[in-house]
Amino acid sequence: MEFISGVKQKEDVTISQLLAGDYIGRTVKMRGAVHNVRDMGEVVFVILRKSEGLVQCVFEGNPAGEAAPSGASGNPAGEAAPSDASGNAAGAVGEAESPAGSSLGFSDIRSLKEESAVEVTGRVVAEARAPYGFELRLSSIEILSVPDEVLPLAINKFKMHTSLEAKLALRPISLRNVRERAKFKIQEGIVRGFRDFLMSQGFTEVHTPKIVSRGAEGGSNVFKLDYFNKKAEMGQSPQFYKQTMVGVYDRVFEVAPVFRAEKHNTTRHLNEYVSLDFEMGYIDGFEEIMAMETGFLQYTMELLAKDYQKELNMLDVKLPDVSRIPAVRFDKAKELVAEKYNRKIRNPFDLEPEEELLIGRYFEEEYGSDFVFVTHYPSKKRPFYAMDDPADARFTLSFDLLFRGLEVTTGGQRIHDYKEILKKMEKRGMDPADIASYLMIFKYGMPPHGGLGIGLERLTMRLLGEQNVREASLFPRDVTRLEP
Amino acid sequence: MEFISGVKQKEDVTISQLLAGDYIGRTVKMRGAVHNVRDMGEVVFVILRKSEGLVQCVFEGNPAGEAAPSGASGNPAGEAAPSDASGNAAGAVGEAESPAGSSLGFSDIRSLKEESAVEVTGRVVAEARAPYGFELRLSSIEILSVPDEVLPLAINKFKMHTSLEAKLALRPISLRNVRERAKFKIQEGIVRGFRDFLMSQGFTEVHTPKIVSRGAEGGSNVFKLDYFNKKAEMGQSPQFYKQTMVGVYDRVFEVAPVFRAEKHNTTRHLNEYVSLDFEMGYIDGFEEIMAMETGFLQYTMELLAKDYQKELNMLDVKLPDVSRIPAVRFDKAKELVAEKYNRKIRNPFDLEPEEELLIGRYFEEEYGSDFVFVTHYPSKKRPFYAMDDPADARFTLSFDLLFRGLEVTTGGQRIHDYKEILKKMEKRGMDPADIASYLMIFKYGMPPHGGLGIGLERLTMRLLGEQNVREASLFPRDVTRLEP
Repeated sequence: MEFISGVKQKEDVTISQLLAGDYIGRTVKMRGAVHNVRDMGEVVFVILRKSEGLVQCVFEGNPAGEAAPSGASGNPAGEAAPSDASGNAAGAVGEAESPAGSSLGFSDIRSLKEESAVEVTGRVVAEARAPYGFELRLSSIEILSVPDEVLPLAINKFKMHTSLEAKLALRPISLRNVRERAKFKIQEGIVRGFRDFLMSQGFTEVHTPKIVSRGAEGGSNVFKLDYFNKKAEMGQSPQFYKQTMVGVYDRVFEVAPVFRAEKHNTTRHLNEYVSLDFEMGYIDGFEEIMAMETGFLQYTMELLAKDYQKELNMLDVKLPDVSRIPAVRFDKAKELVAEKYNRKIRNPFDLEPEEELLIGRYFEEEYGSDFVFVTHYPSKKRPFYAMDDPADARFTLSFDLLFRGLEVTTGGQRIHDYKEILKKMEKRGMDPADIASYLMIFKYGMPPHGGLGIGLERLTMRLLGEQNVREASLFPRDVTRLEP
Repeated sequence: MEFISGVKQKEDVTISQLLAGDYIGRTVKMRGAVHNVRDMGEVVFVILRKSEGLVQCVFEGNPAGEAAPSGASGNPAGEAAPSDASGNAAGAVGEAESPAGSSLGFSDIRSLKEESAVEVTGRVVAEARAPYGFELRLSSIEILSVPDEVLPLAINKFKMHTSLEAKLALRPISLRNVRERAKFKIQEGIVRGFRDFLMSQGFTEVHTPKIVSRGAEGGSNVFKLDYFNKKAEMGQSPQFYKQTMVGVYDRVFEVAPVFRAEKHNTTRHLNEYVSLDFEMGYIDGFEEIMAMETGFLQYTMELLAKDYQKELNMLDVKLPDVSRIPAVRFDKAKELVAEKYNRKIRNPFDLEPEEELLIGRYFEEEYGSDFVFVTHYPSKKRPFYAMDDPADARFTLSFDLLFRGLEVTTGGQRIHDYKEILKKMEKRGMDPADIASYLMIFKYGMPPHGGLGIGLERLTMRLLGEQNVREASLFPRDVTRLEP
């Protein structure tokens, strides 16, 4: 009988293995995609693309490969420098075929196609101008697979200089560009930060259903589906379920997709996005929720600075200061920007996108803060489960977090008393029977609680300084886009 | 201007804070739900339910509260012992109202309702028979919120002794039972193990869309929806996207919901479940995928033993030995069980559920293993993207992992060559134009790769020794169940 006993060390090495060990002068195998081939005559540079970064490989006419002409060497990988010098668009590869399984020597290196998967064998040589300070002096290249066609997009340029439309149409390929993929590596870091921080604060991770009988926030912007002849919807938010789970674990979080059938086609909206949700019980006030979010941001910026510095540098991202975040009342914020930017308040119970931008600008200018909590949103702009301010029921104990003028979070304290939520539903003409299984939690007892939802793509977008939320979604879904 | 500067220490303490510090003899505040009230006359036990566990609180007629009658004390919380002795069903609470915000002394303790949210103040006293070895001698109870009605289910019994149907109908409440919630705490541990292990192996986490234009595996068991007048489906699997992301990050994983409109109403099927997916490039064979899964299981069992021992004990779960997992060919496995259990092989290219059970039994009996990899599934039972075995194209380089006779994983090597996948699609009468954006990755080059998908609820179910997969889903979706 054959047995599988766990992960075995592979013969080929990763970049971090190589950097962690004493490999200079030793011959190693590495695997990756042929990102770029530059033929310099006597010397051919092959840039290998691996998950962690680019590796500069040098193939010389002299098979002994002892000394590379240092003038010819340098930094053709160009990953670290924001220059386009390394770019070598499609079509530079020779025409002769080298099928998968074949092993190339110097004489047939010119047949090497970009985007081939290869295993290279070479000697590790210190080279300050190469990424990570080393290059491989190759003795052979083994072909693992070959592409069928030449790339339609020069993904091996440091910046692709192409439109968002073009990038999205070719998303499965354009994501291979090192700057494109760096964005989603940073996004990974944000999600890690969210989870790790909340775990450290006693939260439990939950998984709640996305096919639901009714949307948490009601309204018409839901995707409907037929569920075995029952009317169902795709969840707009895990709101009801995360509140339910507060009764079970006191503090919970979820990272999962949410679905909104909004017909706007803007730079800020996606029809499916990843929502970072948490909900916490036994709070003393909704300020505690803002404090928890601030803690998450503080933790996450530190994590990014520690583990994602390469990507931050590549994209020229400066992490925001989140040591303290100003909090301002909704009505006060409107007054402040009306005064400073000489603007009329048209509707005291609504916030226009331009006002959001101006509030962001105000707090940047006056307090040097990229973030601002706007609190006490009008009750009529918030869902029925929001807790009204006991001091003035026209407003709620809720907040949005703006990041450089864009709403990235909505949160607040929820009603926990059964009679109170029934009263508010009645006032809004809602039928308790429609959401009986949600109301059950209040009937049988819920602690004071509140929480928030963060739009992952919006937070990523603002952090990266992107102008369109689609730049921060691997495969964005919008009114016109259902593929790739 | 007000500023939010991060999480502040709360006045009330958690169980772990209390256990980590030197609290014996000190007076503390704790918050939680009133899990149980037991009136012993001169002494009233109040069991507080917190996320981490139960806390025994004692309220004595003597307000100085210096010495509890040790005969009356003991272990009414009963969390650790699998006995029903502590149970106190609904209705035991007195009728007098104690509204939220009020503070109770001993004289009005009998009005305390179960499932109230409270803050208790009391002195920490060592008590070996109480959970965690301490109890609180209360001086006061402050009411934070009160339920409107008495629970319809005795969730404070150690075992609820009620049907799955009844538990699911009252899921938002029944999950508050300590054994119910322990299941999902263990499930959290499995997901943590999956992510942490794969991160350590150089995988990148991705988030791919769940609204898709076509299902990865085709067929009729998809939920359809109208996407702005385009035909769309809920993703059955992140298959196409995770393969796509191998071209970007070499190794990727995703934890996300998948949707299957299967009409079976069995103990093994859910219509929405959480899929643990990974996909890895540059593999030498599909054995590497099985090795990675074995590594995940090894890591996760250690993590559970380390961080989830309380829940494992409560549910009497014995962790399986995953130091090595046998692997057997599909055809060989059929032969083995046919021989040992005197069974006819009806269809050599299919595996019946009973055969799966018998294969599980065989490897348990012969090798003492709860797990077995069944490899080389027939090509016609696998999707078009599965790589056929070069040695015999009737079979594939794929596998299932059975856990005590239940399929919990499907995986394998995928075709990476463009012409080869086109050929296989043609043979199956599929139109490449339908999935052009997926096929793009092969056209422009993909490394050899493979991966797997694990059904989180099935893995949890088998680990817990449950007989129905619904026991391992917080809010299961099945043919008849769309709520709660």
